Amino acid sequence: MIAPTSAEQITTMVGNAVTASRAWAATDEPTRAAALDAVADALDAAADTLVPVAMRETHLGEPRLRGELTRTSFQLRLLGEVVRDGGYLDARIDHADPAWPMGARPDIRRVLVPIGPVVVFAASNFPFAFSVIGGDSAAALAAGNAVVLKAHSGHPELSALTTEVVVDALASVEAPAHLLQMITGTEAGRAAIVDPRVQAGAFTGSIPGGRALFDLAQSRPEPIPFYGELGSLNPVFITEQAAAGRPEQIVEQFVASFTLGAGQFCTKPGLLLHPADSGIRALLAEASLPPAAQLLNPRIQSGFTQSLSELELQPGVAPLQRSTASTDNPPAPTLLATDIETVLTNAELLHEVFGPAALVVSYTDEQQLVELAERLPGQLTATLIADEDDRIAPPLIATLTRRAGRVLWNEWPTGVTVSYAQQHGGPYPATTASTTTSVGTAAITRFVRPVAYQNLPQALLPASLRDGAVPALVDGVRIG
Amino acid sequence: MIAPTSAEQITTMVGNAVTASRAWAATDEPTRAAALDAVADALDAAADTLVPVAMRETHLGEPRLRGELTRTSFQLRLLGEVVRDGGYLDARIDHADPAWPMGARPDIRRVLVPIGPVVVFAASNFPFAFSVIGGDSAAALAAGNAVVLKAHSGHPELSALTTEVVVDALASVEAPAHLLQMITGTEAGRAAIVDPRVQAGAFTGSIPGGRALFDLAQSRPEPIPFYGELGSLNPVFITEQAAAGRPEQIVEQFVASFTLGAGQFCTKPGLLLHPADSGIRALLAEASLPPAAQLLNPRIQSGFTQSLSELELQPGVAPLQRSTASTDNPPAPTLLATDIETVLTNAELLHEVFGPAALVVSYTDEQQLVELAERLPGQLTATLIADEDDRIAPPLIATLTRRAGRVLWNEWPTGVTVSYAQQHGGPYPATTASTTTSVGTAAITRFVRPVAYQNLPQALLPASLRDGAVPALVDGVRIG
Repeated sequence: MIAPTSAEQITTMVGNAVTASRAWAATDEPTRAAALDAVADALDAAADTLVPVAMRETHLGEPRLRGELTRTSFQLRLLGEVVRDGGYLDARIDHADPAWPMGARPDIRRVLVPIGPVVVFAASNFPFAFSVIGGDSAAALAAGNAVVLKAHSGHPELSALTTEVVVDALASVEAPAHLLQMITGTEAGRAAIVDPRVQAGAFTGSIPGGRALFDLAQSRPEPIPFYGELGSLNPVFITEQAAAGRPEQIVEQFVASFTLGAGQFCTKPGLLLHPADSGIRALLAEASLPPAAQLLNPRIQSGFTQSLSELELQPGVAPLQRSTASTDNPPAPTLLATDIETVLTNAELLHEVFGPAALVVSYTDEQQLVELAERLPGQLTATLIADEDDRIAPPLIATLTRRAGRVLWNEWPTGVTVSYAQQHGGPYPATTASTTTSVGTAAITRFVRPVAYQNLPQALLPASLRDGAVPALVDGVRIG
Repeated sequence: MIAPTSAEQITTMVGNAVTASRAWAATDEPTRAAALDAVADALDAAADTLVPVAMRETHLGEPRLRGELTRTSFQLRLLGEVVRDGGYLDARIDHADPAWPMGARPDIRRVLVPIGPVVVFAASNFPFAFSVIGGDSAAALAAGNAVVLKAHSGHPELSALTTEVVVDALASVEAPAHLLQMITGTEAGRAAIVDPRVQAGAFTGSIPGGRALFDLAQSRPEPIPFYGELGSLNPVFITEQAAAGRPEQIVEQFVASFTLGAGQFCTKPGLLLHPADSGIRALLAEASLPPAAQLLNPRIQSGFTQSLSELELQPGVAPLQRSTASTDNPPAPTLLATDIETVLTNAELLHEVFGPAALVVSYTDEQQLVELAERLPGQLTATLIADEDDRIAPPLIATLTRRAGRVLWNEWPTGVTVSYAQQHGGPYPATTASTTTSVGTAAITRFVRPVAYQNLPQALLPASLRDGAVPALVDGVRIG
């Protein structure tokens, strides 16, 4: 048991973070990229130490955790590439132009600069990829900011060990001290997010927890951006044609996706829409579900049991299947069923159940899919299982584009690659900032803000804004 | 007197805006750009009708208002260019890659899509450029959104006339009906920003007014981005060397800048730092100030008088000069004076006085400039009047980069060109969203959100994401 960080300690640590952030912001891009690489190497090297601790504290399996650690070091290196490239700086150079149509234009140059110290709240369900040095921390550091990391109580020993690995790696490349500092305890997290010197927050977790922190960040005398990734149902829409053509394959892949990692993914498909007269429901009733597995921690376990039983008590909802290896503790993978008319008239059915459960919903008319899509709360993902000539596909995609951050076609949402084009974030409550992503290289732009320099001598400009330094929009034309 | 829009009307109008927004989002970029051009042409053609009404309602002069109208049609055309170019869409295409280091990668394509209906609150001080079809409306429309425009009570007739011109121009190119709808009244504005169908807000005005709307937007069940441009002191730092070298020129230019448009610019330099032993203060005491001029409206007039007298009552603050043509109504251009020690110990001196006034502050040690810069609230601009070999310049620029959105060198902040690299926005209270700008082509990105499509057939992708359609980041490489 690690003692929670005191208010006094927070004050000191945020002060340290300010100093570290300024020193770090003043380093050049290759230096920052090299530091990210060093951290990635150190994580890889520490796998045999870290993974067993993670297994014990989270009940996740070894292959999953080793894969997640690979993802974690990979995203550090990918962000290093992005930082070396410099395109993310969105450098813009307008040379002075006396003939500019609205009147003579001065020399103006604009670039994105680090926003300042960031508080990152670690997630429970990704003890590596969204914890101490996960996506949020990596993006904040890559952008040139110090990070105050609120550890998740679900894996305290792993958090402390990971912090040690990161701090040592950063020291080995002579990065500023205090670039990453770990804090613990709910109160400490609240104190950090309202510290006036903190300039942004990032969070992955529940809707109530995330909303409370968002509200704190917005009600500060000086509000700051708060990037919370909260919750999502991740609906899957099976068209009539697809259901008729490949029902067994769909059912098998769906079961694999909603039970992956014991259903503890933000992108778990929690809502499956299928044609009433297809064989999908019957196949699901008979499908082989994986055995019950220990969830991440007791709070998630009891939360799962409670939200599942609340859903089960809603009128018109009936059990469809529970894993045969079912006991109440650990809770078993569970499918509930209803029809789309019931869902359309009761918004209570559209709440996420975090864990291995899904609601299976029959429909009789494909137009109902668009109707439901219109009423969905904001989503991280929405999936179509469909054929290219399905006439419902274009209107359904158009509607889901308004309601989700990622729209999938005949693939399953639980796979979230880290790449240039990835988007992980959508309208509230999927995230508190639908204009941003927490996965993929664009995640770095959450932790920068633009500054323009007017008429500055070249020698006094930031290096990135001198002529020809990085890819830039020069007088409106992309160069480099 | 135009009757305020009722709550019932707001409900209907937001419904119309939703329909218009969807139709508009579905148009292609050339169609949207052509509509922006048509609106620009119509505004230019209506100048002789609009400008006299603006003169009567705002007390601003004809040359200023004609120039502002030119700026307004120019920014519509420039945004049209941006929309035709397509680079603002930040299209990203990751082709499927089985060898992707963290594991096989699917085909993922990401693009920015219109966010949905936007409520724009018009400013009083730019009856064209930040009013009905000003920067915020132009950017929201260009991005593919319908706009509900809350007119400013300071120029009701001009607002109604401008709306007519815009609506007719949009109809002439067969844009969707209700793409721009005007509403009036404070309560109507509040009702619009909390309507769950509205997806973003934009505002230019006072800190209390903007903060109240920001708080409403953030406390909605589904919070939305609120881009408020609130207030700024726009400090000017004169180094010892510059003050010694060209005192008359500095004083003349400063007087022209702080009294331009009767000091009613967001970027008016309201704080001037000068060496105590230079001749700057004596020159300012004798400088010729322009005569008193009617301010925009009675509320701004009484606000100016009140905030100026509050500032004048602060200990250590003394009058330096008031225009010789002074009367209390209209209020005269006024300079107050104090020293930097007084400012460093009393944050009350760092409040904006909107109108033709500035606080002139002497310092004895250039290091105090950095100290003051550190304590400044967030600023739209900060200006150095300095020489290239001034040793204080680099640390001062580094500090001001953290506190302001635009840093100027030997130019004055009241000129705000519209261009690719312009930045108008800074840390709170300059703006409620320091990561964005309300002037310049980057302003368009406030009204879009990213969506990724995974494994979608080419025929079902948005046109912008088909191979080769627009400039894109393809597998991490910039193309086009």
